[in-house]
Amino acid sequence: MIESAETTVLRADAMLTPAGPLVGAELAFDAGGRITYAGSLRPGSAVTHDFSGHVLMPGLVNGHTHSAMALQRGVSDDEGFAAWLTAVQGLEQHLTRADVEAGVQLALVEMIETGTTAFADMYHWDEGLIELVRGSGMRVFAALATFTAEAVGFPGVALWSGAEATAETERLAAKYARDPQVRIGFGPHAPYTSPPDFLADLAERAVRSGIPIHTHVSETRSEVEDIKRRYGASPVEHLASLGLFDAEVLAAHCVHLTSADIDLLVENGVAVSHNPVSNLKLGCGIAPLPDLIDAGVRLSIGTDSVASNNTLDLFEEIKLATLLHRGVREDAAAVRAATVLDIATRGGAEAIGFPATGALEVGKLADVIALDVRGTAATPLDLEGSRTALLSHLGFTTTGADVRHVFIGGRHVYANGEHLTLDAEAIRARAREARARLVRRAER
Amino acid sequence: MIESAETTVLRADAMLTPAGPLVGAELAFDAGGRITYAGSLRPGSAVTHDFSGHVLMPGLVNGHTHSAMALQRGVSDDEGFAAWLTAVQGLEQHLTRADVEAGVQLALVEMIETGTTAFADMYHWDEGLIELVRGSGMRVFAALATFTAEAVGFPGVALWSGAEATAETERLAAKYARDPQVRIGFGPHAPYTSPPDFLADLAERAVRSGIPIHTHVSETRSEVEDIKRRYGASPVEHLASLGLFDAEVLAAHCVHLTSADIDLLVENGVAVSHNPVSNLKLGCGIAPLPDLIDAGVRLSIGTDSVASNNTLDLFEEIKLATLLHRGVREDAAAVRAATVLDIATRGGAEAIGFPATGALEVGKLADVIALDVRGTAATPLDLEGSRTALLSHLGFTTTGADVRHVFIGGRHVYANGEHLTLDAEAIRARAREARARLVRRAER
Repeated sequence: MIESAETTVLRADAMLTPAGPLVGAELAFDAGGRITYAGSLRPGSAVTHDFSGHVLMPGLVNGHTHSAMALQRGVSDDEGFAAWLTAVQGLEQHLTRADVEAGVQLALVEMIETGTTAFADMYHWDEGLIELVRGSGMRVFAALATFTAEAVGFPGVALWSGAEATAETERLAAKYARDPQVRIGFGPHAPYTSPPDFLADLAERAVRSGIPIHTHVSETRSEVEDIKRRYGASPVEHLASLGLFDAEVLAAHCVHLTSADIDLLVENGVAVSHNPVSNLKLGCGIAPLPDLIDAGVRLSIGTDSVASNNTLDLFEEIKLATLLHRGVREDAAAVRAATVLDIATRGGAEAIGFPATGALEVGKLADVIALDVRGTAATPLDLEGSRTALLSHLGFTTTGADVRHVFIGGRHVYANGEHLTLDAEAIRARAREARARLVRRAER
Repeated sequence: MIESAETTVLRADAMLTPAGPLVGAELAFDAGGRITYAGSLRPGSAVTHDFSGHVLMPGLVNGHTHSAMALQRGVSDDEGFAAWLTAVQGLEQHLTRADVEAGVQLALVEMIETGTTAFADMYHWDEGLIELVRGSGMRVFAALATFTAEAVGFPGVALWSGAEATAETERLAAKYARDPQVRIGFGPHAPYTSPPDFLADLAERAVRSGIPIHTHVSETRSEVEDIKRRYGASPVEHLASLGLFDAEVLAAHCVHLTSADIDLLVENGVAVSHNPVSNLKLGCGIAPLPDLIDAGVRLSIGTDSVASNNTLDLFEEIKLATLLHRGVREDAAAVRAATVLDIATRGGAEAIGFPATGALEVGKLADVIALDVRGTAATPLDLEGSRTALLSHLGFTTTGADVRHVFIGGRHVYANGEHLTLDAEAIRARAREARARLVRRAER
């Protein structure tokens, strides 16, 4: 094919493609960020970026986070669940709009520099915050979180409740309907914090408008017991019975599931976000990832917020998701790194609604990251000798610290470890100040 | 106190001390590397290194690895246990002395740059390799691995067997008896690869000479069943009955234990190395860490070799050790970060036989690392506002990539991300070449 002068051509030592690892790789995309070539080196290409000593893979997709909570990193996370929740909510009651903005900006910096190019979020989103994400170059599926007045234990309810959020969601969804970086969704927090009539109304609106839903489902054992007591059904069954799954749903966590629940998720095409670090850290449990994979559930991997993690580095999540069930089931093949890498890229992109991204193949948008493989932990990396060396490296060794370049839709947003769209230093300083002020307000 | 001109004084934003985190910290040590002050900032100190934007903690101690296997990183680790073992052993049969040296050097580079200052190792150690470690500045408890002819599934037996290793261990132990960087040990591979009479002989020698023992114990369920079938006892009971625990023993893994086993470990003062990443990756299972902590077992944390990890970054091990049982037991307080950080430093140093290190307090040797806390994942870090902020940061956020300075016994071995004792670039290049040659030999 003939490429225009506006074509960008990347060369790297290797590349992760849908067909597996490719050694000696070239990726080209046009001015619109559309991939026009993904394959072996071509003699005579006008190379824009020579990434020798690096490998290319699709940008990572974070299937579940609350980016604004970056401001609440490291809050009381070593004293058990009750102390953690009290401390996090104690701060959350005093959050201002400026704090939320500072948190979102900090999370954008962290996600980009650790190789994430799209994320699904649930928090207090508004137009100004969406514009911050657009400016950064990132893609977001932003759900406006709602609690209802009867929600217990979430004191910051004033920020979140009411028909207001529903109307604002519908307005924003219409405004950004054609934006390739933005999807707007309803964010009913969870079945135990949203009454059935509210959920049924949202389901109807979602089906009518095509607006997707992002919610927490079956995160803890006590939540499952609570819903069973109240409604005589599991959370998954309860949501299905309310018609919620007639809409497009992203269900975060899904730790405690019956096989009937898994069948319902598959039948209704519900996408699940698996968050292993958060589920362990908060003592929620271990989600049945191998069963979800075997059943063919639509899957993504998420970090949850940094308050329950404490980073947004998805490579850590990828390694843990691969390892965890190998130990639980005493089977070193229980979960494959190759599978989890696919979930964290192609699967996640599809699950959170950016199916034009997530894979390095012709026709997709160029959401691509370059990882330095010259460091000690990348040595030796036997790309020539072993077909699985790249999968092994990406699944078991790579961390966010290896990310050197990030392109989103062809836009270069991070180059040689420097942000091109965000003033990272100023954002970190602002976050430090905002946190200090927040703590002072909460102590008053 | 009056300090000589040869005193080194470090200042940092905070420091992890045996009494907990200290904000605004100063650490001084004399020309012999002995800590003379560890506390709050003192006006008028002649500061040698101003590490503002950094925090100090004791160097990490790796309780179990096979450093030479750094050359076998990323070998067939996504196809189940049998394929992995076949591939790793397939290479191991063709290892040369030069390969072992290249692997040890690579591991030294990786350990130092991720903040490890002492490690317990079991492999084919000799005087030349010990001298490499001494030159790097690191501390090693080096056990000379032995298999016996009846060992099944370890084809590289020629390198390892016989009375030769026992005699060489005794010779090296005598030679390095007074070296503060070196301990030499017997390394009977495991109860299932060492016959009872060999173990009983080693036990007697170890008690007589004071030479410690490093061995694998109860790593897999099948090993436990095998030993029960052969000897009518669990591996721990079997080793106890042979008198092995009359010597000083470091037992790696201990995944499958009965409560009687745990009692035996406590009664005999056996030190255990917990290796959560390796145990998960190879499908071995989940060691009962909370039970070991509660029972008062002497504990360390280890990475195992990179073939089963795939890095030597102990911060990853620390986070996983803290998280894992929170999920397994559905209790966010099941294991505390504070406890695991203590195990990875003070506990590990004591467990592998360097009790003069592992804590930043007066009289100990200055094995200390400085971590950069100016990055995004370290933001915000509310050191002033929260007494637990430093523990949270070290336990849940820090990775080896944050390490900027390493001192071992007061010797500055890593400064601003540059090695002062090792030629890292040349060592990485040598490892790449050695791996390529090894693979070619194995394919012949």
